[in-house]
Amino acid sequence: MALRPKFDPETHGLNKKFRLTKYTGLHGGGCKVPDVLVKLLHELGSNQYHDEQYIGGMIMPRLGIGLDCCVIPLRFGGLSLLQTTDFFYPLIDDPYMMGKIACANVLSDLYAVGVTECDNMLMLLGVSSKFTEKERDTVIPLMIHGFKDSAEEAGTSITGGQTVLNPWCLIGGVATTVCQQNEFIMPDNAVPGDVLVLTKPLGTQVACNAHQWLEQRNDKWNRIKLIVSEDEVEKAYHDAMFNMARLNRTGGLLICLPREQAAKYCAEIKKVEGNQAWIIGIVEAGSRTARIIDKPRVIEVQTLEDGTVQSVPPTTT
Amino acid sequence: MALRPKFDPETHGLNKKFRLTKYTGLHGGGCKVPDVLVKLLHELGSNQYHDEQYIGGMIMPRLGIGLDCCVIPLRFGGLSLLQTTDFFYPLIDDPYMMGKIACANVLSDLYAVGVTECDNMLMLLGVSSKFTEKERDTVIPLMIHGFKDSAEEAGTSITGGQTVLNPWCLIGGVATTVCQQNEFIMPDNAVPGDVLVLTKPLGTQVACNAHQWLEQRNDKWNRIKLIVSEDEVEKAYHDAMFNMARLNRTGGLLICLPREQAAKYCAEIKKVEGNQAWIIGIVEAGSRTARIIDKPRVIEVQTLEDGTVQSVPPTTT
Repeated sequence: MALRPKFDPETHGLNKKFRLTKYTGLHGGGCKVPDVLVKLLHELGSNQYHDEQYIGGMIMPRLGIGLDCCVIPLRFGGLSLLQTTDFFYPLIDDPYMMGKIACANVLSDLYAVGVTECDNMLMLLGVSSKFTEKERDTVIPLMIHGFKDSAEEAGTSITGGQTVLNPWCLIGGVATTVCQQNEFIMPDNAVPGDVLVLTKPLGTQVACNAHQWLEQRNDKWNRIKLIVSEDEVEKAYHDAMFNMARLNRTGGLLICLPREQAAKYCAEIKKVEGNQAWIIGIVEAGSRTARIIDKPRVIEVQTLEDGTVQSVPPTTT
Repeated sequence: MALRPKFDPETHGLNKKFRLTKYTGLHGGGCKVPDVLVKLLHELGSNQYHDEQYIGGMIMPRLGIGLDCCVIPLRFGGLSLLQTTDFFYPLIDDPYMMGKIACANVLSDLYAVGVTECDNMLMLLGVSSKFTEKERDTVIPLMIHGFKDSAEEAGTSITGGQTVLNPWCLIGGVATTVCQQNEFIMPDNAVPGDVLVLTKPLGTQVACNAHQWLEQRNDKWNRIKLIVSEDEVEKAYHDAMFNMARLNRTGGLLICLPREQAAKYCAEIKKVEGNQAWIIGIVEAGSRTARIIDKPRVIEVQTLEDGTVQSVPPTTT
C-alpha cells in the first residue's frame, strides 16, 4: 500500500481552504441516538407477529435489530437474506478515500457474520447544498469513484441507490446477499477459553481528531503538540484513513477463535493481506460484558515506510 | 377511509406553530440531480464487467440504474434479488402520515415491477438537529409508527436500518424481495394499442404547495384564492396525503394493459381497494417518448364525504 499523497484541493481546482469535513456538523457515523428512539427501534424488531415465521415447514427466527446485519429467512429452500445499511458524514478530507471508507464500512457488517460475497450494493448519497457548483462537480465524482472502486475490490457492484441534496454531505449504502444457512455465522458462539483477535488497530477517531486540531492550530493542538509532532499526526491520520478504507473481508474486525487456531489465523491474515492482526483478549464464563483487565498491555502499532502497519509481537492477556 | 383530523401540534404538547415541513429546505423527494452526476451514476450501471453475468449456466443481464428497482440474478436456481431505496424530506405536516407516505413510496418501486410481496424493509431516518428535545421525542415516534404501520399493511416488517442526526428531517427505507423469474414483470412490454391506466390521481404536489401558501397567507395564496376556497385547498391537501400514503400494491401507479383488459382491471381496483383508476392514454408505435394529445380531457377527481375519491367517467383519448 503506497503512501497516498495528501488530498490537495488546489490540484483539483478548488480553493486551498476546501475541507470536506467542514460539510457536516458531526463527524463519522451518525449520532448517539437518544434512549427514547432506541426503545422505539427495538420495539420494531420485537414485533410478536414477526419474531418467528413459518417458512418451508420450519419455524425460523427472524434476526435483525440489535445486530448490524439482519438475517431474514426466505421462502426458498433454506436460503436467507442478509442485509445491512449504513451512512456517514465526512470524517476525512480526501473525497475519494471517504468513498472507499463508506463502502468498506457498509460491507463490514456483512463480513462480520462471515459472509464474504455481496450480491448487490446500493449507494446513498447526500450532496451538500452548501457546495459551490465547482466543489460539487469535483468532490462528488471522487467520492462515487472511491465507493465504486471498493465495491469492485469486494467483487460486487452498485446497481442503484438514491441521491439527494442535503445540508451535510453524506455517503453510504446498502449491502445485500442471499446465502445458505451454512454460509454465515451468527456472532454468538463464543466459549470460555476462546481468544479475541482484532484485525485492525483501534484509535482511528483519535488520529482524525488530532489531525483536525493540527489543521486548526487550536487550543487542543497546543496541548497535544507537547507530546506528538506534526509528522506523527500526519502519519497517524494517513494510516487511520487506509485502515478505515481496508475491507474486512478476510474473517471480520473483531473475531473470536479457539486459542489454538488464533495464531494460525493471524499468520494467514499477514500472508493474504500483508497486515497484522492481534490477539487482544480472552473469553471468560459469566455475564455478557467486556472489561479491560487490570494491567492492560498497550500494543503499539508502528508504520513501515511503505504504509503498511506492523506491531510489536502481541501477547495474550 | 375516514377523514383524518388535521395534525394539531398542541394536542401533542408542541407549539401550535410547529410545522414538520419547516425542517427541510426542499420539499418531497430529494432534488433534481445535476447532469454531471446523472452521467456518473449511469456509468456505475454500465460497467462492462457486470452488464452480463454467467450464473447457473445462463448469461443473464443485470438490470438496475435507470429503473427505480434493480433486479439482480442470484446464483440459486433462477432466483432474482429485487431491491429499491428511497428517502424523503417532509412534504406534509402530519408526522404519522409522513411515515406512511415514505413507506408506501419505497414499496411502490417493487410494486412497479409486479412484485407484491416484500421480504424485508430497512428504515432510514434522519432526526433533525434543529428539533427541540420535545419535538424530537414527539415527532420521530409518530413517523416511525406510520412507517411501521404501512409496512405491516404491506405484509412485511422492518428489521434494521440507520438513524442519524441531520439538519433536515429525513425518512425512507430499503425494500427487498427475492423471487422467481415469473414473479416479476419488467416495464418494457408495451405494444401499440395498449392503454395506460393510472391508479392514483395526479396533482398531489400542487395540493401540498397550495396548502403551504394558504398557511403562510403569502403572495401566491393571494393570487390563487381568487379561484379556490380555503376549504377546497384543505380538502385537496387531505386527499393528496391519503393518496400518497396508499400502497400501490394492486398491480402499480401507471400500468399498461391491452385495451380489453383495462376496463376489467379498473373495476377490480374499485372492488378491492374502493378507489377509482383511470384510463388516461394509449400506446402508439414509434420513439419512446410520451406526449400530451392536442386536446386532452381533464378528468376531475371529486372527493366523497367519507374521504374516498371519485371521478367523472373516464374516456380513452
